[in-house]
Amino acid sequence: MVRTAVAGASGYAGGELLRLLLGHPGVEIGAVTAASNAGRPVAGVQPHLGPLAGRVFEETTPQVLAGHDVVFLALPHGQSAAVAAELGEGVLVVDCGADFRLKDAGEWERFYGSVHAGTWPYGLPELPGGREALRGARRIAVPGCYPTAVSLALFPAYGAGLAEPEAVVVAASGTSGAGKAAKPHLLGSEVMGSASAYGVGGTHRHTPEIAQNLSAVAGRPVKVSFTPVLVPMPRGILATCSAPALPGVTADALRSAYEKAYADEPFIQLLPPGQQPSTGAVTGSNAVHVQVALDEAAGRIVVVSAIDNLAKGTAGGAVQSMNIALGLPEELGLPVTGVAP
Amino acid sequence: MVRTAVAGASGYAGGELLRLLLGHPGVEIGAVTAASNAGRPVAGVQPHLGPLAGRVFEETTPQVLAGHDVVFLALPHGQSAAVAAELGEGVLVVDCGADFRLKDAGEWERFYGSVHAGTWPYGLPELPGGREALRGARRIAVPGCYPTAVSLALFPAYGAGLAEPEAVVVAASGTSGAGKAAKPHLLGSEVMGSASAYGVGGTHRHTPEIAQNLSAVAGRPVKVSFTPVLVPMPRGILATCSAPALPGVTADALRSAYEKAYADEPFIQLLPPGQQPSTGAVTGSNAVHVQVALDEAAGRIVVVSAIDNLAKGTAGGAVQSMNIALGLPEELGLPVTGVAP
Amino acid sequence: MVRTAVAGASGYAGGELLRLLLGHPGVEIGAVTAASNAGRPVAGVQPHLGPLAGRVFEETTPQVLAGHDVVFLALPHGQSAAVAAELGEGVLVVDCGADFRLKDAGEWERFYGSVHAGTWPYGLPELPGGREALRGARRIAVPGCYPTAVSLALFPAYGAGLAEPEAVVVAASGTSGAGKAAKPHLLGSEVMGSASAYGVGGTHRHTPEIAQNLSAVAGRPVKVSFTPVLVPMPRGILATCSAPALPGVTADALRSAYEKAYADEPFIQLLPPGQQPSTGAVTGSNAVHVQVALDEAAGRIVVVSAIDNLAKGTAGGAVQSMNIALGLPEELGLPVTGVAP
Amino acid sequence: MVRTAVAGASGYAGGELLRLLLGHPGVEIGAVTAASNAGRPVAGVQPHLGPLAGRVFEETTPQVLAGHDVVFLALPHGQSAAVAAELGEGVLVVDCGADFRLKDAGEWERFYGSVHAGTWPYGLPELPGGREALRGARRIAVPGCYPTAVSLALFPAYGAGLAEPEAVVVAASGTSGAGKAAKPHLLGSEVMGSASAYGVGGTHRHTPEIAQNLSAVAGRPVKVSFTPVLVPMPRGILATCSAPALPGVTADALRSAYEKAYADEPFIQLLPPGQQPSTGAVTGSNAVHVQVALDEAAGRIVVVSAIDNLAKGTAGGAVQSMNIALGLPEELGLPVTGVAP
Repeated sequence: MVRTAVAGASGYAGGELLRLLLGHPGVEIGAVTAASNAGRPVAGVQPHLGPLAGRVFEETTPQVLAGHDVVFLALPHGQSAAVAAELGEGVLVVDCGADFRLKDAGEWERFYGSVHAGTWPYGLPELPGGREALRGARRIAVPGCYPTAVSLALFPAYGAGLAEPEAVVVAASGTSGAGKAAKPHLLGSEVMGSASAYGVGGTHRHTPEIAQNLSAVAGRPVKVSFTPVLVPMPRGILATCSAPALPGVTADALRSAYEKAYADEPFIQLLPPGQQPSTGAVTGSNAVHVQVALDEAAGRIVVVSAIDNLAKGTAGGAVQSMNIALGLPEELGLPVTGVAP
Repeated sequence: MVRTAVAGASGYAGGELLRLLLGHPGVEIGAVTAASNAGRPVAGVQPHLGPLAGRVFEETTPQVLAGHDVVFLALPHGQSAAVAAELGEGVLVVDCGADFRLKDAGEWERFYGSVHAGTWPYGLPELPGGREALRGARRIAVPGCYPTAVSLALFPAYGAGLAEPEAVVVAASGTSGAGKAAKPHLLGSEVMGSASAYGVGGTHRHTPEIAQNLSAVAGRPVKVSFTPVLVPMPRGILATCSAPALPGVTADALRSAYEKAYADEPFIQLLPPGQQPSTGAVTGSNAVHVQVALDEAAGRIVVVSAIDNLAKGTAGGAVQSMNIALGLPEELGLPVTGVAP
Repeated sequence: MVRTAVAGASGYAGGELLRLLLGHPGVEIGAVTAASNAGRPVAGVQPHLGPLAGRVFEETTPQVLAGHDVVFLALPHGQSAAVAAELGEGVLVVDCGADFRLKDAGEWERFYGSVHAGTWPYGLPELPGGREALRGARRIAVPGCYPTAVSLALFPAYGAGLAEPEAVVVAASGTSGAGKAAKPHLLGSEVMGSASAYGVGGTHRHTPEIAQNLSAVAGRPVKVSFTPVLVPMPRGILATCSAPALPGVTADALRSAYEKAYADEPFIQLLPPGQQPSTGAVTGSNAVHVQVALDEAAGRIVVVSAIDNLAKGTAGGAVQSMNIALGLPEELGLPVTGVAP
Repeated sequence: MVRTAVAGASGYAGGELLRLLLGHPGVEIGAVTAASNAGRPVAGVQPHLGPLAGRVFEETTPQVLAGHDVVFLALPHGQSAAVAAELGEGVLVVDCGADFRLKDAGEWERFYGSVHAGTWPYGLPELPGGREALRGARRIAVPGCYPTAVSLALFPAYGAGLAEPEAVVVAASGTSGAGKAAKPHLLGSEVMGSASAYGVGGTHRHTPEIAQNLSAVAGRPVKVSFTPVLVPMPRGILATCSAPALPGVTADALRSAYEKAYADEPFIQLLPPGQQPSTGAVTGSNAVHVQVALDEAAGRIVVVSAIDNLAKGTAGGAVQSMNIALGLPEELGLPVTGVAP
């Protein structure tokens, strides 16, 4: 049994990690820590985690986190490096925060306004070379939820050299992506019945991460226009991604590229022609649903992907990466059926 | 491996049965049948069931349903008897419809307007004597979703003789309880942002089933005023149940009765004092969350319970009953963690 | 032109007051004040109030509130008395808070834990004698949202002597009733897809107000079991109210009593038989939709009412009361069409 | 008093027309007609229209529609020409359907698969020359909801020559845009908690209409990639629109162009810098909220607009156009305050 700990377990990412770990046959759950919620019963903060109802959140200290094979970090940005430094090199540290995702220190500083902590192996195994980078890793940076949805939607187009390096992405997201801290604009009264964009004009912090992933696949810099849209649902990301098609690209060639790229992927499902992804179908699962189209009049490749932002977009991606790092079956403990309707 | 079939698999109850059976380690899924959807790919109708994406719904015929150990029926009312008659007596038939729930033929005829088909062992193991009735059974009537939520909320009060036989129940329900047939009043545009009652004045068909359960526990007829309320969420029932307290009942005695009644129940969780159930915490799970209070000024016992109407309220209850009937561990394949937020 | 001010205008009640006053042909809007939002542009806090986009919230001081004919108070409980004391006796003060609703100082202290401020004319004109009490009044206590929905649903039954003095009420409410202060359990992620009860067991502060109203109509103490349920919608209350029918009450007599009680009411609509109220149909309006039924098997009268908690339940009721107090046409500026779907 | 009729009054567009006309001080409502709902009480189909509760839908015939000054058509595509032909040339016919929106018969046939009925003056007065085309008109084609949101967002950029003629639009829409016909994928159970795209790859019928509007402003063909996304809310469109910025465009120049273009527009509000539009803020109103940004890294102009699809996007635009055509004040009867939260 792999012994795991979750630091930052009272938030949404932490709660989803615990939900998935509870259903994972190869792990046991050790320390469950929090910051301001330390000392509170898990039952009061995460009432959906029935089997942990008797537990109490501990403080996030090196002592509490010691003695585990895997430590998941679901902490605010900027806190992961210090915690990881106290854990031995043999411990697998899986960071759901942003600290170690970017390779370019300048981009980090531009978007996060602090000193770059470094770069860890990137937990998106479906990207070219992604699995290899994770095997045996002891430090993993879990991708952001939007970069997961967008990178998986567009890498086949860039990998097959079908698209111009200018992507436009508008992604509708459920509210859990904004976290559990109580802010007025996230109140149910505000979000129900209303859609709104944020980070408009390329200011969202996931923008450089998306560009980093697509550029690596394309082999040249890909410019990304990214707009996230908050919509009234608790979970899910629906990413509408497009890029100018290179001359001569046909609908058949496009679909073939996607079929080939996803052929052996256990979690990505290219939907049958005519069927569009919906976030509802992947809720609670690690599945990624994708559909692709060529808009000949506009000259653009349009790819729509749906994920659960908390599952494949965060905690599911984290567990999948852990499985690979530890040499466990990649799909272990990760549901591919959504909870719908 | 227990070989299972699901008849009526294109609806919500059928889809949830398949979702749970896909995660059940002791079963395999054989025939998956439908009526008007026969011939269509499962992927198009139930896109959340990734592992069945390559399947096609078959017709609901005796030939197709033959050769299974367990056949789940998720059919419109009135169709189960004919299908069951074609299946051997050794086959376990688990009926998610209403046909065999009521004992009183007169009540059946009054509420359903047709001839009573009979009465099968009742799939609510938590009721007194409930498990015994299911062990070895080969025909099981799965309770209605509302009767599940209400009966589990009130049986301890009646079992311990604490309440007058006059219950008042108002239960908020998600829309999936109304099924997948497209009706104007169930459109998203109509239900979002709106709550409405139906079956007002005791006309909902679950009313006699609730009364039957509570009367059996109380040992005398319990009158039930039941009002279901449709609220804007896909899943979940929150039942607010009350009854006049008998003289001398104290809050402590009340809580003790509930602690005792639920002590060994794997799926029912009496929440800590001060914490109220929410349907979100049980979404996708077989869990039942309950809280109990004594309103001294009004002289009433008030019990609130939360279930997932499709899981514990239908498909989860069906699988739980199957487990008991076949001698499998009762909890096998049934999640107790909810998908929240 | 009547010159009005709104104190506490940055919250939901204040915003709704401003929305209605903007559409009221007989008033002009003077001071618009706030507490922590003082100094902020209205556009940033209440972006739906386009015509006030150029305004800035002022501080809630006697100087700012001076010089108006009508001052609406939408303040936290306990603050109204001090503000009102600074306003002249000729100024109409309409308090949307709870401070002056209850007549019984003991009940106030029991439920609010502070000294009783007093009792003002009660702004529910539809109750027997209600209009008379408001004509010429210069201090008005606007009822709570739940008491409005419940009192209007049940007063005809008690007024006609048809029901036992033991009411059971379960009311589903949208989240705006809980206000705009950011609390974790009111986050969109928490409330969407989830229903939960609160104030269970008779502890909600609107309980004594409901009992006060019904007892006055019945001419004897009416016990009230009241449970509010938070459901995923921004606005609306659907109150399911029942009470034991007195012997001999018939469905016809019941309906007649309601037709008679509502005959001249401009805002209350007794729906045709067979049609149930929905909160969606009254959104944004001052309308009250009601349906009534006799459940003979359970021996209970069941009345369902729908209101918009912010409109008729707060700001609409306030404006309606102002109209009466000032001798304006009662319906002036108050929409009776809902914004649906 | 202008005497108006609404044909197709039982649907969402028809209901919204009636809601606005009920609040319009210059009109009276004559015939209210429907197809399959003819003969049914308005109260049962449009319960939010209290003042029309006593009415019954009539059949849509020339006789019934005769004798009105204005006839609004809210009919399925393809039916407007025949109805309009029966009405005199002096009658103002305002068509909320698509039949007369497109100028290019070839585009019509490509997207609608039928013979082009013709082209009427286009009911989007904010476009350059838009008001002039409507003054005195007796036939008006009301724009589609998406073209309204997108054209108003992008015309200033094209009008000022700031953008390349390649627009990319992703627009989140509430479900009422899909109409009131009961289809399984529009059930509340399906849409709540889920987002999905449709018409992907440029197949949505509003695409050529958007291109027509933008091309007219730009003075050269504008290619449009348009993807609509269905999100869980009843009303509202949030359009995220972008186009490559021409060389040398600055953020200041961009904002100036928008300030200038909207300076005299009563319904369009360019939000203060830093504030993003939300559909909730315009619900029920004829307001258009817009924000604009220059994404320098991606080299794109990004404009986000929010409208109520049923109000400004359909019925509000229709009434606004009527006002202009008849010489009434343009803003008469059209709320600019949204119903929020």
